[in-house]
Amino acid sequence: MSNELKVTAEPGVPQVMTTREFDAPRELVFRAFTEPDLLMQWLGPRRLKMQIDRFETGHGGNYRYVHSDDDGNEYGFRGVFHGEPSMDQLVQTFEWEGMPGHVSLDTATFEERDGTTIVRTNSVFQSVEDRDGMVGSGMAEGMNEGYEQLDELLEKLKTDA
Amino acid sequence: MSNELKVTAEPGVPQVMTTREFDAPRELVFRAFTEPDLLMQWLGPRRLKMQIDRFETGHGGNYRYVHSDDDGNEYGFRGVFHGEPSMDQLVQTFEWEGMPGHVSLDTATFEERDGTTIVRTNSVFQSVEDRDGMVGSGMAEGMNEGYEQLDELLEKLKTDA
Repeated sequence: MSNELKVTAEPGVPQVMTTREFDAPRELVFRAFTEPDLLMQWLGPRRLKMQIDRFETGHGGNYRYVHSDDDGNEYGFRGVFHGEPSMDQLVQTFEWEGMPGHVSLDTATFEERDGTTIVRTNSVFQSVEDRDGMVGSGMAEGMNEGYEQLDELLEKLKTDA
Repeated sequence: MSNELKVTAEPGVPQVMTTREFDAPRELVFRAFTEPDLLMQWLGPRRLKMQIDRFETGHGGNYRYVHSDDDGNEYGFRGVFHGEPSMDQLVQTFEWEGMPGHVSLDTATFEERDGTTIVRTNSVFQSVEDRDGMVGSGMAEGMNEGYEQLDELLEKLKTDA
């Protein structure tokens, strides 16, 4: 098992794909992605505080969360879910409120292999410029730190179970 | 003014962009895209009957419509809206129920120029295969026929106004 985050972003293509393995069964990893009280414990960089305003899964459900730093800067994100979330596919739109109107479509899949789970994400953007902006904003670093926090949360959940 | 449909689909990129001009002000064209009783009069190929099951615009709103042919074959489509629809940008997810789980993100913009309206659409898909499948299914032909029906509807609406 390797917990390295792999990021694929081809030049000229408005898409980013990532792969990351977690040492936990996929039911548990899926819960951490879809239950707001778990999601708020890991999503985003360590230095930011996470607050979930709204999180309604299900086709057409809305979500909104806010990351804030120690200086009081706030970064809001929002989107809607497409389809009933399942371990085979979690599909949602995504928009950073700091750049309103720039929307991506994010898909996450959860594949179990010998007790570990491979999470793949696929984000498609309205343009290559939007994709490049997202990658340039430190997307991979933020995901990486978030996923490290998720490793820790999964360990705790496995111990509690 | 040219009412030719231009379609851009670059090899290896999961995206299709189209441009089409309409001889009507953008308020009218936008209404035809967002009011179900107008939309049902033009969307899709001529040979198919259009029925709208559900059409709730607004962030998180659901839509679903069904195209059917004379032999009773039905083709359902569904998605959700992201953000409040505006003439600057109408954003929605799109899924053909015949290939469940394959979702695209569609954006339409409405630009007025000397009393005519340029409608641009931008669809991004989860993969190039999905994009190629959509293009291969006759997407451009269907759009073209739909847009010709929209030309006729817009003429009628302008006369009635």
